Amino acid sequence: MSCDFIALANKGVQELHPYQPGKPISELERELGISNIVKLASNENPIGISAKAKAAMEKEFADLARYPDANGYYLKAKLAERMGVGINQITLGNGSNDVLELIARVFVAPEHEVIFSQHAFVVYPIVTQAIGAKKVVIPAKDWGHDLEATAAAITPNTRMIFIANPNNPTGTWVNKTDLKAFMDKVPQDVIVVVDEAYYEYVEDSEYPQTIPWIKEYPNLIVTRTFSKAYGLAGVRAGYAVANEEITGLINRPRQPFNMNSLALAAAEAVLDDHAYLQKALDVNKSGMQQLISAFDEMGYDYIPSVTNFITVDMKQAAGPLYQQMLEQGVIVRPVANYEMPNHLRISIGLEEENAKFIRVLREMTK
Amino acid sequence: MSCDFIALANKGVQELHPYQPGKPISELERELGISNIVKLASNENPIGISAKAKAAMEKEFADLARYPDANGYYLKAKLAERMGVGINQITLGNGSNDVLELIARVFVAPEHEVIFSQHAFVVYPIVTQAIGAKKVVIPAKDWGHDLEATAAAITPNTRMIFIANPNNPTGTWVNKTDLKAFMDKVPQDVIVVVDEAYYEYVEDSEYPQTIPWIKEYPNLIVTRTFSKAYGLAGVRAGYAVANEEITGLINRPRQPFNMNSLALAAAEAVLDDHAYLQKALDVNKSGMQQLISAFDEMGYDYIPSVTNFITVDMKQAAGPLYQQMLEQGVIVRPVANYEMPNHLRISIGLEEENAKFIRVLREMTK
Repeated sequence: MSCDFIALANKGVQELHPYQPGKPISELERELGISNIVKLASNENPIGISAKAKAAMEKEFADLARYPDANGYYLKAKLAERMGVGINQITLGNGSNDVLELIARVFVAPEHEVIFSQHAFVVYPIVTQAIGAKKVVIPAKDWGHDLEATAAAITPNTRMIFIANPNNPTGTWVNKTDLKAFMDKVPQDVIVVVDEAYYEYVEDSEYPQTIPWIKEYPNLIVTRTFSKAYGLAGVRAGYAVANEEITGLINRPRQPFNMNSLALAAAEAVLDDHAYLQKALDVNKSGMQQLISAFDEMGYDYIPSVTNFITVDMKQAAGPLYQQMLEQGVIVRPVANYEMPNHLRISIGLEEENAKFIRVLREMTK
Repeated sequence: MSCDFIALANKGVQELHPYQPGKPISELERELGISNIVKLASNENPIGISAKAKAAMEKEFADLARYPDANGYYLKAKLAERMGVGINQITLGNGSNDVLELIARVFVAPEHEVIFSQHAFVVYPIVTQAIGAKKVVIPAKDWGHDLEATAAAITPNTRMIFIANPNNPTGTWVNKTDLKAFMDKVPQDVIVVVDEAYYEYVEDSEYPQTIPWIKEYPNLIVTRTFSKAYGLAGVRAGYAVANEEITGLINRPRQPFNMNSLALAAAEAVLDDHAYLQKALDVNKSGMQQLISAFDEMGYDYIPSVTNFITVDMKQAAGPLYQQMLEQGVIVRPVANYEMPNHLRISIGLEEENAKFIRVLREMTK
């Protein structure tokens, strides 16, 4: 080829390493020639989709040759009512990945610094790198965010801070007292994105309810997803909540049909499926207990988690263990790319899925 | 609010005017308090979705709590086979809007110029503006691309050229001789994006088959969509074809789950539904004839179109006519934002939908 296209790409893209997703079950079964694989790798909801979401999508089939509603009117109206915010405070996204990227693209330029924590969700460095801005990584404290160090790292070039609460892949969380003290220290021209992808799982009363804070902190953006507790990972639905001015800006470069008609309908429907959400949370709670009991019994250290996954210290390089488990038909997630080479992240599955994982782990390490 | 967030946004976003989509039927029915609205406004396929696509989506419901296949393996494999290209030459997108934006974000920076034609698809200026690059608009020739003037406008700062073939909203097209002569004039470090959203509708043997040209012109990227002839506008599915190096670059900032599981399944299935595609093309052909005959009879000038829409000169400001038609339950598309204030763009509908439009037009203007 006579032209070096890599040299033509923007600087940020030249050094960008794309996100490596967990392998789909079908791909792995094809590779390994086995079936009945248990996948505990992508923090997915193990109970399948809501029957109400399914019915809502079936109803959409008649109109699917039409473009989606670019304003997502019905979904936004329902979300706005639930959260007590205005409809013009909501940005819909093709998963929360989409809104996280939009936020960065609107506010961050190559001359800016973006702060996030060590071991924090990999999409933050990716969207920062794609823009070519400077990544400022704050060393973790007890595997979680060190908010004092984060505030201290703010410079005149800092434009954005990502806080995952709870954090993936560690399952750690920040309480309301600490987060509020942090927000008080952040200048208003620094955007704080609090990523609450695992919001629905957290029960502790000290966990912050951030949406009402937006009035007090106009530089606060909260993102959430339908991919976890609401079980719509395959459908792609997420959203951001912020003040109206920020929301208007984020929506400018938003692709008008970023959420498809099925995602809009499914997300709207599952918000009304309280029994589904309760079942998802119940299955998660008992599954978490099942895994913790096994880890305790086998003597493994794990990071206490308030989410739908738990990350365990294998006390040795986790890569080979991951491979061995694969061959036994269990997919978990190695997290070496999060600077955690000895840990494995296990998503909470159904009782029998968790049991198979525990059995394989016991066999492998006895 | 104490902080001016608009001032914090990137320059390109500060001046960005978002895409204005056609109104969804439901929204309009709500506004006007009428029903049975005929929508001929968004170049959608009037025959509804393919039964094979529908069945494929229903099959996906069982796995929808899982993330989609980030590599889109099965869809890419089928597309690659059909087009005679490698699987690593295909980028999947959440509609072709998604790939058009990715291409611009990878290669275009604020210091670059991006060339496109007057009256060309509005997504080109939007993605250019979002980056803050310079928009170079070439005056149209007979409502279509002036490729000689386009080539002459290339400067050392030109990084990308968008060619819509056929073009929306004019329905015009460029033949293979002219496009090839143009490609020969473009330096290899200028990326040429040929947007073939309406590819399937064109029957003329002089229409270029561009995919094989990618070997000869490594700076050529071809984009296509499943939103038009394949009838999946509500599902969001599109793709780009380019050489492997460019494809690798475009995929770096791509959101890993940009196409959801339903879109992947539906697009793969509809590629095998030859009867569906044939019916879509047949309905379009006879509908186009039906509209043209009416325009000829009523003495309206229209721009000859090889697509699923036709754009008509109303010989007066088209905005008020659009409004009057709305109130009669027919949605068409005013194109004043394309510098065509006297034109209306009419998407080809079913026979009875076209007939209603013709009836309303006749009543209004008799």
